[in-house]
Formats: sequence, structure tokens, C-alpha cells
Amino acid sequence: MAVQTAETATNPTVDLGPAAALSCRECGHRVPLGPVFACEECFGPLEIAYDFSGYDTEELRKRIESGPANIWRYAPLLPVPSDVADKPNINPGWTKLVKADNLARELGVTGGLYVKDDSGNPTHSFKDRVVAQALEAARAFGFTTLSCSSTGNLAGAVGAAAARAGFRSCVFIPHDLEQGKVVMAAVYGGELIGIEGNYDDVNRFCSELIGDPAGEGWGFVNVNLRPYYAEGSKTLAYEICEQLGWRLPDQLVVPIASGSQLTKIDKGLRELIGLGLVEDRPYRIFGAQAEGCSPVSVAYKAGHDVVRPQKPNTIAKSLAIGNPADGPYVLDIARRTGGAVEDVTDEQVVDAIKLLARTEGIFAETAGGVTVGVTKKLIDSGLLDPSLTTVVLNTGDGLKTLDAVAGTGLTATIRPNLDSFREAGLAS
Amino acid sequence: MAVQTAETATNPTVDLGPAAALSCRECGHRVPLGPVFACEECFGPLEIAYDFSGYDTEELRKRIESGPANIWRYAPLLPVPSDVADKPNINPGWTKLVKADNLARELGVTGGLYVKDDSGNPTHSFKDRVVAQALEAARAFGFTTLSCSSTGNLAGAVGAAAARAGFRSCVFIPHDLEQGKVVMAAVYGGELIGIEGNYDDVNRFCSELIGDPAGEGWGFVNVNLRPYYAEGSKTLAYEICEQLGWRLPDQLVVPIASGSQLTKIDKGLRELIGLGLVEDRPYRIFGAQAEGCSPVSVAYKAGHDVVRPQKPNTIAKSLAIGNPADGPYVLDIARRTGGAVEDVTDEQVVDAIKLLARTEGIFAETAGGVTVGVTKKLIDSGLLDPSLTTVVLNTGDGLKTLDAVAGTGLTATIRPNLDSFREAGLAS
Ligand SMILES: Cc1ncc(COP(=O)(O)O)c(C=O)c1O
Ligand SMILES: Cc1ncc(COP(=O)(O)O)c(C=O)c1O
Ligand SMILES: [Zn+2]
Ligand SMILES: [Zn+2]
Repeated sequence: MAVQTAETATNPTVDLGPAAALSCRECGHRVPLGPVFACEECFGPLEIAYDFSGYDTEELRKRIESGPANIWRYAPLLPVPSDVADKPNINPGWTKLVKADNLARELGVTGGLYVKDDSGNPTHSFKDRVVAQALEAARAFGFTTLSCSSTGNLAGAVGAAAARAGFRSCVFIPHDLEQGKVVMAAVYGGELIGIEGNYDDVNRFCSELIGDPAGEGWGFVNVNLRPYYAEGSKTLAYEICEQLGWRLPDQLVVPIASGSQLTKIDKGLRELIGLGLVEDRPYRIFGAQAEGCSPVSVAYKAGHDVVRPQKPNTIAKSLAIGNPADGPYVLDIARRTGGAVEDVTDEQVVDAIKLLARTEGIFAETAGGVTVGVTKKLIDSGLLDPSLTTVVLNTGDGLKTLDAVAGTGLTATIRPNLDSFREAGLAS
Repeated sequence: MAVQTAETATNPTVDLGPAAALSCRECGHRVPLGPVFACEECFGPLEIAYDFSGYDTEELRKRIESGPANIWRYAPLLPVPSDVADKPNINPGWTKLVKADNLARELGVTGGLYVKDDSGNPTHSFKDRVVAQALEAARAFGFTTLSCSSTGNLAGAVGAAAARAGFRSCVFIPHDLEQGKVVMAAVYGGELIGIEGNYDDVNRFCSELIGDPAGEGWGFVNVNLRPYYAEGSKTLAYEICEQLGWRLPDQLVVPIASGSQLTKIDKGLRELIGLGLVEDRPYRIFGAQAEGCSPVSVAYKAGHDVVRPQKPNTIAKSLAIGNPADGPYVLDIARRTGGAVEDVTDEQVVDAIKLLARTEGIFAETAGGVTVGVTKKLIDSGLLDPSLTTVVLNTGDGLKTLDAVAGTGLTATIRPNLDSFREAGLAS
């Protein structure tokens, strides 16, 4: 499907609800809704432009509150048809916002600390949110194959959603990912291709494939469907505010791989303000990376506007994107909102996974170790204000990155009798 | 805390909502609420007796529907205080009831097929439901240590809930469990003891420990707190009916380890009928086991009323209880409701895991492979009617039993270029 350049910039054959057009983030050029991602004028990224006119705030709030316990409660704010909840999809979202009082005590947070726990999604990462959007776009554009480049979580999310919706799937991952992620991506029966290289190599290859007849007619969720896909992360912002009683948090700590999620969380918060669903108050967004893949954090600290690519080397593989597409936007948001971007070592990631598990009973993947670890570091350095309401994202599941805490295991092994129990010094 | 034998059989110091007393399943003898599990008259199992008098059906329905998106929406029907939602707990439940149209097509089910997917719980198995109840009972009785014998899933659930609630935990498991289950049980920082033996050895040891000063003051969720713990499985029945629009399913397929879950699902359905929340219609409950641990299935087929213990040998380790405490009750329920008990081989379990993943994008643990495999077998043999509404339980998560599908992996490995892609025969 080629880019249409109609003057009106609308595509009347596509029903994606309030999505009106694609608009260039750099130059504002508008094109009709279609499977395109780069501006034909300036190569800037395209994003969804909405028509939210005609929404009454209180009616909208009621409609949302009486909607399903998944992201489709926000259908009026997403690029999806209004009957989306009736179509076969993976229906992620409405995950728990856990009041983390034990963790708050350990970290010295007095203003209220929450963990938004996206491990409760169908394939146990926030990627189900973005894939669910991309699937609706793929359906609208007539694709029948879903594809992606992935650091692991996306692969599972695409595989599962494709299976549910009756799409073919073909997924590309670095050949050396964690076993949990490989099996979870493969079990849904789609094609799973290992690429000899890192994520940035995989991504480059997919961009090549999309311009080639071999990839003709494929919906790459994070390439040609990226404008739709990316909007899924807005739902994290919506849910957090609704779960706080339609209130903005003061501070959010968000992991960064490509930077898309952080960027769209900011977009979601601004939409809620614009729609009158939350009171307009300042909020700060903090970005979190692993030291072994910290291009945005390095640029932030150096005061740069552009991000210099890195070759990743960290246990936080899901965040190991060395050349993050949305890096400059992340820098902009962190600075505009009074946040920051920080990174932690792999050792701090592991400590933070254990800290979160021990205090709150939440078993996070390495990405969650990154955000919790960065939260601790930002408090220690005074950049994050412990007297303010703070939401930390756990975007994935510890079961997918078992190796990170493989040292954790049995306290003791005994024979099944009381003597053996006492010998092991276990009796109180 | 010793058994109280007050004539009135009430314990006014304990507030567990509508729970009025403990009542013997065999002889009906009543004792006050306390951490006891066996009848002092006949050694029969004690279960919760409720006082549901004074509930108005429509008021109750409204109260439930406006409750939280977790099991506490059913607090008026559970042995928990009315302010339970405000206490630190793991808050499981309200998991997805997936309309499984693709699977239905493969299995030839025309009456509507649903998968109740409990992998969406906090530690990704239905055990969070029962542990959440046991935790409230433990709090009410003044315990500060949570303990259990576990085939794996319970260990993680107890570890997480104890961490959240600030309890100490000490968990006993067979020493040779799946890595995912061991790490998930250990990461929450409690004590995790491997026992040289199988689950039945672990269980026997725990019963010894509870009678010994060494286990003094411990809340064993599935021993001295078992009457409270077991009630958590009722919430599966409640949710299924509410999610079907306050309607009973015609048929349910439920996995069996100790048989507690199946027994309490039946109890929950009968309660809903009694309260007028669903119309009184016949329903059939089918039990599912793995051939390598099929004591209840064997007894069912032989027409026996008692269950002869087996030594388990199956990949479905979470169901590997060779001496199931509630076996006789399961037999009774299957026969009374017109259901059956069936078993499948390990190979069929693996095939069923893949079938569910491929058709519905749900990655089940081996226990889910057992229920889906048994459903298929029961349809083939004519025992399960494909023209009726059928709900199959997936009670656990594929990420915890990766070995079962370890053969699943990359379709191909290529270099990051189009030539390599074409050489691998991947171009369409
Ligand atoms: C668990 C997890 N968290 C966070 C991210 C960050 O996503 P983004 O690329 O939108 O920055 C990813 C990306 O793969 C991820 O897998
Ligand atoms: C995943 C899973 N499903 C089902 C069961 C069966 O539970 P029950 O002992 O109540 O029969 C278990 C028990 O450990 C389990 O772990
Ligand atoms: Zn442009
Ligand atoms: Zn008795």
C-alpha cells in the first residue's frame, strides 16, 4: 500500500476510530492513515493525529469507567475501531498499580510509591499493549502476516496476538536471547528467525526486508505499523492516572530501549490534561537505562541533544537497543518536565530485582530491576523527590530472565524428617 | 492455638466476614473458627460454614459488580474481613475468560468454548487465590510465619504473599523441581527447603512438623489453614459465572492434584445457585489428570469410591500428588454431576500445550496441557458434549515448565542480510 498524498489527508476506507491522519513529528506534514512511518518531506517519524473534538469530559470518563478491564476501555483515545473489544485480540492492560509501602520504607519515599506491574499482561510484558494496537492497524490495512524485530518480549507478544487473531507471524530476534524468551516466542507456532548479530543488526535487516519484495504485504509492528503500535504505551499513562483516582502522579520512572514507551507515556499524560480528565499539574518523567546500554543517559548527562549509538553489553537484554530511535525526544521530555535520565550497573539491576521481590512480592525482569535500581539511585543523588507521589514501571516478568537471579535457590536440602530439619539448624 | 470446644461454636474474637464456624465434611460437627483442619470427632476434613442469611440477591450482585477487579469483589462470600481490600495482600483473580473460538474449531466444540486463564495471576498460577485466603486467616489468628508444602506453584505464591504482607515464609518443596519454580519461590527472600523425596514425602513431613515445637506458631497454608485456603478456589467458579453474564457453564474441565480445587469449584457453583445469583441448571464437572499420576482417574474408571495412592511419574509436576486428600469427593462430584475423570499421557500434554498456544496465544504450563488434552480426549470418546458451553481451566503458566516444550525454538538462524534470508528459503 503506497503513501496516499490526498490534499485532505484522510483515508475514508480505514476506520481507526478517533485517528484522523498521520502527522510528522518534525515538520507537521500530514498524510492519510496507512502503513507508513517516515515523513516523505523530511524523513521524520509519523505519529497519529486524533480528532478528539466532540468529547464531553464527564461522558468520556463514564464511558471509560464502565468499559472492559483491559486497554479497550480507552478505545475512544486510541487508533482502533469502536467495536475493537469484539474482535479477536490479546486484550492486555488494566494491570495492577501496586501501592508499594514496604519498598517505599526501604527507599525513604514518603509521598506514596507505586509499582505499575505490567508482568500481569497476557505474555507478561508491556509489549502486549503495543502489539494489540498494531494488530488492529494490520487488520484495517488488510495485512495477514505480523512481523517484528525484537529483543525478546515483543516476539512473544506478536506470536500470541497473531495466533489469537488467526494471522501468520514471522519474528526476528538476536540468536542469543534468554531461553524463556525464545521458547515463549516459538511456542505459538509462528516462524522465529534468529539473526547472527545484536538487536540493532536485526532492526537494520528488517528495514531492508520491508523495502524488498520478500517482505511485501507484511505488517512489521515496530516498522511500518510503528505509528499505531507506539500509541499502545499511552494506555500505561491512562491506567496509572485512572488508578490514582484520575490524578497525575508527580514523578514517573520509565525504562528506555528505543524510547518509544517513555515518549508515548508523556503524550498520554498531556492528552488526559487536554481532555480535562486530570487536573493540569507539573509531572516529572525519569528515564532508566542499564549502564551497559546507556546511550540516552550518557547524552543526558553530557547535555547533548543527540544520542551517540553504543554497542550494548548488559544483562538487561530487553533494553539493549544501542541506537534508540526516540532518544532525542526522551532527552527533550526529561528536560522539559524536570526529570532526568540515569543508569545502573548489572549488579545494581540484580540487587533491585531482589529488593522488589523481597519487599513487594513482585518478580520483575531485568527491565524492572533497571527502573527500581534507577529510582534508588535518583533518590540517593537527590534528583527524585521522595516526598512526592512516584510511580515506577515494571514492564516485564522475572520468569523470562531467570539467569539474572540464577544464584537464588534452595536455602537448604534435607531428608523428610524432623531430625534432618533440626540438624540443618532450621528449627526456631 | 488449641481447638476451642465452646458449645456455641463461634469465636467472637475472629472477624472473618461471613465465615461462622468450621464444620466437619463427614459428620457435620461444628467448631469455632481457628487454625484447625481435622474433626476432633471423626478426623474428617473441616470446612468453612457461612452465614449468608440476610443477603438480598440483587444488592449482592450490585455490590460484587462494583467491587475491585480481583477476588475481593467476592469478599461477602469468603472467609475474610469486610475491609480485606485495604490490607496488604497479593490481590489475585479476575483473570481472563477467553472465548476460544480457534480451539473450539479444532476440537469441534460448537456450544461455546472458553479458557479460564489463571496464568494472569500475580505469580502466574491459581495458587495466588488460595494463598490470599490463607494469608487473611493467618493474620486473623495472629501467625507471623507462612509455610507450605508445594509442588512448585504454591511455593511462589506463598513467598510473594508473605513478602507483600510482611510475614516470614518457610516453604518446603521436592528438591528436583523445575528451575523456574525454584527461582520464583526463592527470589522473594523467604526460606526455601528442598526435601529429598516427592511431594507426598514433603507433605507427610509438614504434618509432622506442625505437631512439633519446631513448627509452633507457623501458618501452614495447606495444612492448619487448609479450610480457609481451600475456599480461594471458589472464586474461580464465581468469576466464570459472572464473566458468562451470571450464567452457569454446562461443562467444566478442572485439573486434579489434591482435588481441592475441583471440590471447591463445585461448592462455589452451588453457593451461587443457592444465593439466586445464577439460574439453577445442571452442570457437569470433569476432572483431569496426567497418566503418570492418575489415582483419581483410575478409581473413577474402576468404579471405586476410594483412591489408591500412586507413585507419580509425569512432567505435570504441579499435579503430581499421588495420595490426593480430596480424591473421594472428586469422584463423588464427577458422578453426581454427570461428568467424568480422565487422564492423558505426557506426550498428549505437550501436544495440548502447543495446540492451545497455536490456536489461542495462551502459553499454559503442563497442568493446562492436562486439561486441554483431557478435553480433546473426552470429546473424542463422547463423554463431553461439544454442543454445550464448556470452560477449560488453565491454572498455570508455560514459563514455569519450559522443559516440557524445550524442543520448540528457532525456525532458522541467518545472517542479517537479504541473501541469507533467501538462502534459508524464507522469502515468500
Ligand atoms: C520489558 C521491556 N521494558 C521496556 C522496554 C522499552 O521499550 P521502548 O523501546 O519503547 O523504549 C522494552 C522494549 O523491548 C521491554 O521489552
Ligand atoms: C497449576 C496447578 N493447577 C492445578 C493444581 C491442582 O490443585 P488441587 O491440589 O487443588 O487439586 C495445582 C496444584 O498444585 C497446580 O499447581
Ligand atoms: Zn516531516
Ligand atoms: Zn467429623
